[in-house]
Amino acid sequence: MGVGDPESLTHAASRALASADVLFTVDKGEAKADLNALRAQVCAVYAGPGLRVVEVEEPERDRAPADYRAEVRRWHAARAAVWADALLTELDEGGRGAFLVWGDPALYDSSLRILDDIRERGLVDVDVEVVPGISSVQALTARHRIPLNTVGGSVHITTGRRLAAEVAGHDSVVVMLDGAAAWRTLDADDWDIYWGAYLGAADEIALAGPLAELSAQIAAVKQEARARKGWIMDVYLLRRRPAPRRDGAG
Amino acid sequence: MGVGDPESLTHAASRALASADVLFTVDKGEAKADLNALRAQVCAVYAGPGLRVVEVEEPERDRAPADYRAEVRRWHAARAAVWADALLTELDEGGRGAFLVWGDPALYDSSLRILDDIRERGLVDVDVEVVPGISSVQALTARHRIPLNTVGGSVHITTGRRLAAEVAGHDSVVVMLDGAAAWRTLDADDWDIYWGAYLGAADEIALAGPLAELSAQIAAVKQEARARKGWIMDVYLLRRRPAPRRDGAG
Repeated sequence: MGVGDPESLTHAASRALASADVLFTVDKGEAKADLNALRAQVCAVYAGPGLRVVEVEEPERDRAPADYRAEVRRWHAARAAVWADALLTELDEGGRGAFLVWGDPALYDSSLRILDDIRERGLVDVDVEVVPGISSVQALTARHRIPLNTVGGSVHITTGRRLAAEVAGHDSVVVMLDGAAAWRTLDADDWDIYWGAYLGAADEIALAGPLAELSAQIAAVKQEARARKGWIMDVYLLRRRPAPRRDGAG
Repeated sequence: MGVGDPESLTHAASRALASADVLFTVDKGEAKADLNALRAQVCAVYAGPGLRVVEVEEPERDRAPADYRAEVRRWHAARAAVWADALLTELDEGGRGAFLVWGDPALYDSSLRILDDIRERGLVDVDVEVVPGISSVQALTARHRIPLNTVGGSVHITTGRRLAAEVAGHDSVVVMLDGAAAWRTLDADDWDIYWGAYLGAADEIALAGPLAELSAQIAAVKQEARARKGWIMDVYLLRRRPAPRRDGAG
């Protein structure tokens, strides 16, 4: 579903939605009402008149597990069972179900893994077609009108959790899933930041400039927005600043 | 313009194209005829009846320069002058020009840099709106129905030129602009490869599996396709294989 704005869907995605029998929604938590509102907007524009919307109840997840990867695996298995049950209950043989993934199913989203799980466990014989959408990373660079890479340079996409350990040697770093404000662990003088939250929505916020000038401001804006709305989804690009010329050089 | 298939455009992109007065095309080389055919297809579906198509002649570029970055800078400056001239000649005050960037303007594309150049040099006072599209990376992962990242893992996007030097420590590496077959510089036993060429087009090719099994085959397919069509645009994801259990372990 791209970033949620109906205009950000591709024609392929809106056509797929129009041909679906059932839309499965799987949100939870504080963002649920807002995401469902975005989905309702998208469906109002593109869905067929007979589309049924079915909510899949997510199993509980341990947000501070001792073993992060093991807990993710357990949780995915539990989700697979719930999803399989929903597919079997709601779809006839040959029926078409749709999942409107916010952002892109390829980036930090587990929808494809759950569907693979369902097939590998033999729970449901399901054919999967992936229709890519505009990801929050693309919404970010479009909003700031910048390319993701420097000329000929590489791009590193990572999580807030991994940023400090992985930042060395990179000059363009995209950070997703940053529950805190991981940019504050970096040497602020080395970086420019291009930050965005709720990108593509009416309450989109975007800020860009030297990290040394914006670090505290963005942290405050983020905290305030999260408190006000009950949730936040933000993403940012860190671009390494050119090294200053040393005295006497050049 | 996404990957070239009209269905891969977003509704925002097709609407922007419909409101444009002039479409500027800037291709060159062997791919030009094919890219123009894709553009014509896209315009046939979405463009307004009065759209004029203007070809911008690209300046010559040194493909084997002593200083790669300096030559890229020189070439961008020369392009800025040519683009500025085209904009001033073809658009009235307040007119709307469109560039249909194949792939996404954010990844290894210089359109945004050239437009920035034009403004910074004071050549044309131009407002730029970026409408993101489906990138070849997204077409690749959609085609193979895989996420880009491993669970909680990072993703590195780089060029064929940089792959060997940068691969250490990463477990998901996207390679673009690989004029050769840079995957052959890696230890094939360590990786799975998800490869695609001409993604989204009628002659799309996609291959996936252990690199040790596919390395030579993909190199041959790539060489054959390039010889047949006169050009190739391919992209691939390398995913590090789980380390084998040592004897006596576990």
